[in-house]
Amino acid sequence: MSATSFSHHSLPEVHARPVPSTLLDALKTRFGDQFSTALVVREQHGRDESAFDIPPPAAVVFAQSTQDVSDAVKLAAEYLVPVIPFGVGSSLEGHLLAVQGGISLDVSRMNAVLSINAEDLTVTVQPGVTRKQLNDEIKSTGLFFPIDPGADATIGGMSATRASGTNAVRYGTMRENVLALEVVTASGEVIRTGTRAKKSSAGYDLTRLLVGSEGTLGVITEVTVKLYPLPEAVMAATCSFNSLADAVNTTIQVIQLGVPIARCELLDANTIRMVNAHSKLTLREGAMLLMEFHGSPDSVKEQVQTVQDIAAEFGGAAFEWAETPEERTRLWTARHNAYFAGVQSRPGCKAITTDACVPISHLADALLDSVTEAQEAGIPYFLVGHVGDGNFHMGYLIDPNLPAERELAEKLNHQLVARALKLGGTCTGEHGVGLHKQGFLVEETGVGAVDMMRTIKRALDPHNILNPGKIFAL
Amino acid sequence: MSATSFSHHSLPEVHARPVPSTLLDALKTRFGDQFSTALVVREQHGRDESAFDIPPPAAVVFAQSTQDVSDAVKLAAEYLVPVIPFGVGSSLEGHLLAVQGGISLDVSRMNAVLSINAEDLTVTVQPGVTRKQLNDEIKSTGLFFPIDPGADATIGGMSATRASGTNAVRYGTMRENVLALEVVTASGEVIRTGTRAKKSSAGYDLTRLLVGSEGTLGVITEVTVKLYPLPEAVMAATCSFNSLADAVNTTIQVIQLGVPIARCELLDANTIRMVNAHSKLTLREGAMLLMEFHGSPDSVKEQVQTVQDIAAEFGGAAFEWAETPEERTRLWTARHNAYFAGVQSRPGCKAITTDACVPISHLADALLDSVTEAQEAGIPYFLVGHVGDGNFHMGYLIDPNLPAERELAEKLNHQLVARALKLGGTCTGEHGVGLHKQGFLVEETGVGAVDMMRTIKRALDPHNILNPGKIFAL
Repeated sequence: MSATSFSHHSLPEVHARPVPSTLLDALKTRFGDQFSTALVVREQHGRDESAFDIPPPAAVVFAQSTQDVSDAVKLAAEYLVPVIPFGVGSSLEGHLLAVQGGISLDVSRMNAVLSINAEDLTVTVQPGVTRKQLNDEIKSTGLFFPIDPGADATIGGMSATRASGTNAVRYGTMRENVLALEVVTASGEVIRTGTRAKKSSAGYDLTRLLVGSEGTLGVITEVTVKLYPLPEAVMAATCSFNSLADAVNTTIQVIQLGVPIARCELLDANTIRMVNAHSKLTLREGAMLLMEFHGSPDSVKEQVQTVQDIAAEFGGAAFEWAETPEERTRLWTARHNAYFAGVQSRPGCKAITTDACVPISHLADALLDSVTEAQEAGIPYFLVGHVGDGNFHMGYLIDPNLPAERELAEKLNHQLVARALKLGGTCTGEHGVGLHKQGFLVEETGVGAVDMMRTIKRALDPHNILNPGKIFAL
Repeated sequence: MSATSFSHHSLPEVHARPVPSTLLDALKTRFGDQFSTALVVREQHGRDESAFDIPPPAAVVFAQSTQDVSDAVKLAAEYLVPVIPFGVGSSLEGHLLAVQGGISLDVSRMNAVLSINAEDLTVTVQPGVTRKQLNDEIKSTGLFFPIDPGADATIGGMSATRASGTNAVRYGTMRENVLALEVVTASGEVIRTGTRAKKSSAGYDLTRLLVGSEGTLGVITEVTVKLYPLPEAVMAATCSFNSLADAVNTTIQVIQLGVPIARCELLDANTIRMVNAHSKLTLREGAMLLMEFHGSPDSVKEQVQTVQDIAAEFGGAAFEWAETPEERTRLWTARHNAYFAGVQSRPGCKAITTDACVPISHLADALLDSVTEAQEAGIPYFLVGHVGDGNFHMGYLIDPNLPAERELAEKLNHQLVARALKLGGTCTGEHGVGLHKQGFLVEETGVGAVDMMRTIKRALDPHNILNPGKIFAL
């Protein structure tokens, strides 16, 4: 894989399509005060956690119903103007940026939990419900929704990017946990995919085609997801190691033995320092695994014993337990804030975040060499990993005003991805392609598969109005 | 839902497209003795377990490599002639029938296990490898592949129909277990989807679009699937109940409590009689759950205790244990042969098999009323269920020469599906749509979603040569 094969990774070109004032008038008429062209509102909808700087959308529609979404898409379709679905703006790959101009379609007000089917372990929600809100609203059922990307993202956004997080090692990602969708297509039609049945062979798996399609094939207006019984027993612990390699090799053995660990997260010493500073903790400054075990009391005890034995083999320090729910929450909040801890460690910086995921046996190769490269390059970074899944994130902390830093970060990212692909992995475990990984996607899956994606996109959205310019160029 | 809304369910019309002799000559030249037009070979490739009677394909190509598949598809594409992928012919919904004529593309000779990656819990195989062969070839690794439709189907065919079986309640279906594919497209191009990483957000989920596409979007030439460590402890048991309702309600509670049961199968008294006769067993003739528990010795003990307690509440007889691996194999072989036991209970009959799957809380409603209807209609039937998934099969045993029996079976099937859909379920949990469930698919998912499927099909196979006439009419 030559360096030139990554030539797609330049910043996206901005070709804003014209947004006719007649469309803006029509949207204003239809949506009244659910419509805004105020710069502050547009800017808030034209910015995400990515390091791109793109002009904001021409207007924002605040949908409150599926009918609103359908009508907005129909109007945009009539004028061939892009529509960009928007949840809470927590995506990392430029998914919501208006690279071809157009209208931001904010679904955050569609935030009702529509039906809780506790006896079937399912719930149906509107797309603007966030993961924390969902767990609050189902608290009384004794069930929970496990998927937890760092931010308090919306279920719609998490579906659109095929998100996962710390619990995926045991409970799967949005791929495994979305059962059914309601979606508004490029023509404004409302369709339903899937049912509440646990499995189905009823035709093409449109649900899973739409999950991870990043708003390019339809706007998600309802999501049915699986829920899980709150485990009878939960234990969380940290374990500190003398080297990153020891922590990683412990993880590999735990997974290979089939221990049903619920969370298995890695931070390096450098990142622990940032987290301690940000979350006012005193975690030991070494490579650390943060783990959680779910099950019956006996099964949890058994899992812990197995993992302690493995960790001890690799010189892991004694487990430190988070005994109470409050301590656990504090620990996992600190973990979820690692991204922000990293970004705040260098005032004014932006993070260029990698997201490679490799087969578990190659995790050490993929991760350790990437860390060494960053250290040798002298770039500030943080490192967190959903290592139980073979997934890790380096966040290169760059000064966005210094092109050389961005270039260096991109170069390191390219090297990291090339290595992951060579090891049978993927360029993105959970963040999606967006703007940033389009070249990597071709490297990973080949031109043939990306062309198949393009063919599907052209067929389902012939005027390319649904979040155009994302995943691939047309 | 009116009876007339099921008007799509008439038998498929046969419109064999012409197969020019120039194509047959070209195939003969390219494939030599891997090509046959012998009637006996064609008939063997034009018949499956479905109750349809359709003229056989015009010829059969025995592919031995991806290149063979690509060349065969390219030749067929040149002449706009249908290509129907064929594994071992165990599908139940007419998937392999040549309703528009064309060439059967037999991949059963592509039966190599290509790479076992035990340390990553994955294996890559050619499509003609059967599930039993796969488990034989990986025996020494301490891993196993859990998905087990009744027949010894091929991994390619199981991918194409999104198959599952008795272990799906714990290990998922082909949807959850296929990681990556190599596929020959309608133009003969070879593409790859997915990687060996456990999760990915890299663009559209083509892997899952192709899994369950029933050969209509591409011919699968390689499959990478997940493997699982052989459980440390395995216990299998049967439990007999005084009524079907008691057995079903036991199941519902087991699932709602989140017991990680590995298998939870139901047979009714009538079917137990057939199984006893066919497999020379002496199972007690009542509604019966066949269960299996996987895990550490302690975890298995705990699961068994929980399930025994629940079963006792519903009057379940004492568990009878299959103590040795041989006894377990005998038990599960008998379960897998229930279909054949049913068919052989009425000499000369064909089975019209239902495949509804409902949310677990509705299993009793869906299943008990369907059995009552069959009994009241006086039609011979068998009943088996992957009830842990909410999935059950009635097999109506009809004399294929008596149209009235077929009509009655279809009517009962329609009633059963209508009920399942009303309860939030699907018309097919694991068999696929094929020819038989095309009307049901529309009922289930709506015209909009089926039109989206059609649009994808037209875009990816513009001349409709890949297994045409299946899933939906174009």
